[in-house]
Amino acid sequence: MKLNQQKTVNELIGFIKSELANTGMKKAVIGLSGGIDSAVSAYLTAKAIGSENLLGILMPYKTSSESSITDALSVVNILGIRHKIFEITGMADAYIEKLDGSVSGLRKGNVMARCRMIVLFDHSAAENAIVIGTGNKTEALLGYTTLYGDSACGINPVGDLYKTQLREIAKYLNVPESIITKNPSADLWEGQTDEGEMGITYELVDKYLFARFEENKTEDELLKSGFEDSFIKRVNGLIIKNEFKRKHPPIAIVQGKF
Amino acid sequence: MKLNQQKTVNELIGFIKSELANTGMKKAVIGLSGGIDSAVSAYLTAKAIGSENLLGILMPYKTSSESSITDALSVVNILGIRHKIFEITGMADAYIEKLDGSVSGLRKGNVMARCRMIVLFDHSAAENAIVIGTGNKTEALLGYTTLYGDSACGINPVGDLYKTQLREIAKYLNVPESIITKNPSADLWEGQTDEGEMGITYELVDKYLFARFEENKTEDELLKSGFEDSFIKRVNGLIIKNEFKRKHPPIAIVQGKF
Repeated sequence: MKLNQQKTVNELIGFIKSELANTGMKKAVIGLSGGIDSAVSAYLTAKAIGSENLLGILMPYKTSSESSITDALSVVNILGIRHKIFEITGMADAYIEKLDGSVSGLRKGNVMARCRMIVLFDHSAAENAIVIGTGNKTEALLGYTTLYGDSACGINPVGDLYKTQLREIAKYLNVPESIITKNPSADLWEGQTDEGEMGITYELVDKYLFARFEENKTEDELLKSGFEDSFIKRVNGLIIKNEFKRKHPPIAIVQGKF
Repeated sequence: MKLNQQKTVNELIGFIKSELANTGMKKAVIGLSGGIDSAVSAYLTAKAIGSENLLGILMPYKTSSESSITDALSVVNILGIRHKIFEITGMADAYIEKLDGSVSGLRKGNVMARCRMIVLFDHSAAENAIVIGTGNKTEALLGYTTLYGDSACGINPVGDLYKTQLREIAKYLNVPESIITKNPSADLWEGQTDEGEMGITYELVDKYLFARFEENKTEDELLKSGFEDSFIKRVNGLIIKNEFKRKHPPIAIVQGKF
């Protein structure tokens, strides 16, 4: 699953250029979380359209960790892009506090992701800019994403890359070490990590997903190559359960049948 | 473009039943605006899954008209469904008031539509329910809709119906007269109407869209049947310009090419 870094980066930059040209827009907006996915997307976009045309928006919630901000700001500074810090606590809490009873961390996380979508899309409208997506292929397949939240975008340069491939691209692009090595997290509470929450390591699941989707291995071959049956069932379950996040909602088709 | 009302209603109810069965969910959530689209969707859903399993949520903003509330409540009362009034002013204004400078009505409207999406999807998570869509085919084709806002849903029973067809279905279902006859409006400011804002009547545009998409008429045939050239250009322009709202965002495809 090793990529030719240079070729891939060139293709991704070409993709951003041609998509922007199609829309007639010159500018882009991106949400910077301090994580590796948004960092790589920002690097690629800045190279494609020029730093002056990219606006990075940091959208912390009151519980976001300090390092998320500093890592995001280091991307801003290295790339020399415009930036804005827009705290979403007011919006998100205006909703959460109106609810009766307790709200799970998962629900709060989805509210936050969707508030960030609102901030990004409204700024894109104000700037006549496109929203750059930052969701990777691993999280899309596993459904570790918020529908109409972090997965919402205008174009997505990194959506066909697995998380571990993104790490390699990040190294190639000289993304700061602290961003590459930190444990991926949605940063909803202290100590939260993607891998801890899913109970799956990116290293292992990416190998499986690559073998299944890029090499088209059969279930038999996957078992023989050493993936455990329980692991396969678990991952396949996540893929099926979250299919709705990757599809358009079903519409009842009635025309032409009467 | 006349539908067989009874057959269509039965098909739509069947669609809702089978989609719910697919997901394993028994309950649904719907946003009730007081307009005809959400009324028809609610009637169909209540018939499909039972009134006790449908939660109607009214989500007024501070400028919403009183009649939007009373019309939505009349749907609640006739169907005997559960309901909740959840004002979005706090959320929407928490965002809008943080911005510098003036914000257009269009941008405010998009923020409101997306705040409503957050309310609906969070309630659907809390209730283990599906979000019922209410967007019609006319507005989807013309792009008179907010991406990740009012167009967001789990399933949409009315998405293949043109606005004028929805009116006929509404009559067949005995939706209150006041809802059927009032001028369709996003209700963002007093006196706003869809037709006024678009500068197009549903009556005329639906005839055009039906001829083009359901009867597959060529441009020549459309001109000959009396549609004006400027009208055709204008409508076709809207359809093309808003194509992105009906598609998944483009993802750069890189795997398998190296």
